[in-house]
Amino acid sequence: MRRLYQEAARALCAAHRVVLAGHVNPDGDTLGSALALAHLLRAREKDVVVLSADGVPDIYRWLPGADGVQTGTDRRDFDLAVVCDAGALDRVGASVLPVIASAARLMDIDHHVGDAPFGDLRLLDARAAATSEIVFQLGQLLGPITRPVATCLMTGIITDTGSFRFPNTTPRTFQIAARLQRCGAVPAEIFELVFENRSLAGLKLLGRALDRLQVSGDGRVAWTVLTAEDMRALGATDADTEGIVTHVRAVKTAQAGLLFREIPGGKIRVSLRGREGVPVHRIAARFGGGGHPMAAGCSLPPPLSEAVQTLLAEVRRYLDAGEPSAAGGAVSAAPVATG
Amino acid sequence: MRRLYQEAARALCAAHRVVLAGHVNPDGDTLGSALALAHLLRAREKDVVVLSADGVPDIYRWLPGADGVQTGTDRRDFDLAVVCDAGALDRVGASVLPVIASAARLMDIDHHVGDAPFGDLRLLDARAAATSEIVFQLGQLLGPITRPVATCLMTGIITDTGSFRFPNTTPRTFQIAARLQRCGAVPAEIFELVFENRSLAGLKLLGRALDRLQVSGDGRVAWTVLTAEDMRALGATDADTEGIVTHVRAVKTAQAGLLFREIPGGKIRVSLRGREGVPVHRIAARFGGGGHPMAAGCSLPPPLSEAVQTLLAEVRRYLDAGEPSAAGGAVSAAPVATG
Repeated sequence: MRRLYQEAARALCAAHRVVLAGHVNPDGDTLGSALALAHLLRAREKDVVVLSADGVPDIYRWLPGADGVQTGTDRRDFDLAVVCDAGALDRVGASVLPVIASAARLMDIDHHVGDAPFGDLRLLDARAAATSEIVFQLGQLLGPITRPVATCLMTGIITDTGSFRFPNTTPRTFQIAARLQRCGAVPAEIFELVFENRSLAGLKLLGRALDRLQVSGDGRVAWTVLTAEDMRALGATDADTEGIVTHVRAVKTAQAGLLFREIPGGKIRVSLRGREGVPVHRIAARFGGGGHPMAAGCSLPPPLSEAVQTLLAEVRRYLDAGEPSAAGGAVSAAPVATG
Repeated sequence: MRRLYQEAARALCAAHRVVLAGHVNPDGDTLGSALALAHLLRAREKDVVVLSADGVPDIYRWLPGADGVQTGTDRRDFDLAVVCDAGALDRVGASVLPVIASAARLMDIDHHVGDAPFGDLRLLDARAAATSEIVFQLGQLLGPITRPVATCLMTGIITDTGSFRFPNTTPRTFQIAARLQRCGAVPAEIFELVFENRSLAGLKLLGRALDRLQVSGDGRVAWTVLTAEDMRALGATDADTEGIVTHVRAVKTAQAGLLFREIPGGKIRVSLRGREGVPVHRIAARFGGGGHPMAAGCSLPPPLSEAVQTLLAEVRRYLDAGEPSAAGGAVSAAPVATG
């Protein structure tokens, strides 16, 4: 791994005109890692352009350097393209792909190590909680880690770990966070800007979803629904539905939490969250969806009520089939207290 | 500071019969720090009793050693009493105080450094995010940090920092978290057990509160109300209201978030949360309440609608002037004891 980092650092130092890109529907990690790298390279007098096909969402506009992010460019003179956190090359988006493809060399930096590796140089580390962790280690070779760099990287780590609470958080994640805070990042401010900066419509939507929360007779499955009319009446956007399903799974008896959403024009979109031992991506896969063991999604045909029945039946069938985790993710050796 | 830790470690090693206690209404830090210390001392063959006047709340029952916690004891033969995270001695509770008072020596371990220091030995560090941080450093002298010790201390740190998102989180906090995870603590499991272990009633109550969320015309104040009838209809308890006001403040334009709660039998309980620069404890103090700059509470007389108007007027006055209204001003509500 160390050799890979050194090789990547050398390639970055050798380049003159660098284009950086993240993935469509950008999150804090794809933007944070790309912007941090941009700061590091600009400090070395490189000519750097950062592209994001979908621009920068409101909640990330304050990131240092975000105001310079472009949705595309006519330039085709880059000697190095670096893609951060994209998973697969086509996820940079149609407006960005030709720019990336035109560069003399292509570097892939990612903590998603999937089926579609790409690039002449690959800095991939599935053990990193965030691509920002990888860029931090690269930054130690390219340095210095200034306050803007630290802020961008801390944002990537905080968003991809849900503020250090997802299972991807490792001792190394905590150690890097300590270093980034020492370099000037302020985790409490970043958390507030990203997670406590919600629209009134989004919070009311969460309220409506939770007010309708339902739990199966045995308590093992919790679910709720949002209709197209809810979205319209509250003036809510897709982004406002983010995070709702995590609250659904928070029911203490629930091994799985589901959010059903009516999409205007047809299908029912389902978000699934499972506890340890309930790999919901396997349930989602039965309906042509996918995701991670603890977070997945799929779509079903309308009407809403039938989609709910179909999916709940599948979840129940899955839980009955004898999959593990009677205690739903308890610290081993100690039973969960239920009130 | 180093000398203080060594002195405390020596006193603990010299003792034979040790009683440990935390504060009433125990949280993850008071229980985590006391239980971690109990594990460390028992590994050194000490006779250890852990007291909690209010027992152990359901969400902390899984903590290693929690099943041995007692609400009191008739024993008066302890040669050392250690009070963790209490702020002031009387906060150990009436049933525990005589036991503590009977011990030959008294040690105070705390990150609250208040007006009422007590004890023959004081291990106080206001820069620590949690008392568990202090016990970790003590644990390095008493060692080893086993998995149960690490789990207890990580729980204290996660709960007192809101999973590393409150402003009390420091680089040292992150470094200690890295060490605790290496010693076997699993932060994702702890987070889930403490924060994603909610009752259906509590989540529906949050839903109802957010569905009713209101924002002032200028967006600076967000508030919501819960009636006694809401609580009754959902079968919700006081504990279920925990955390709701944090969601209220999450409205992006809001500088302050308020939750008004009708308490059966009379008063209206108000929880206030402010952003940086809006010290809500000064507003709460106007009504006989108190708290911290970012989190405070007070009570007003019924009816609910008038309490809302009175408090909103005071918040607006504060935001306009940067100060609470002068004593003897227009505020008519009589101060009521905080609940």
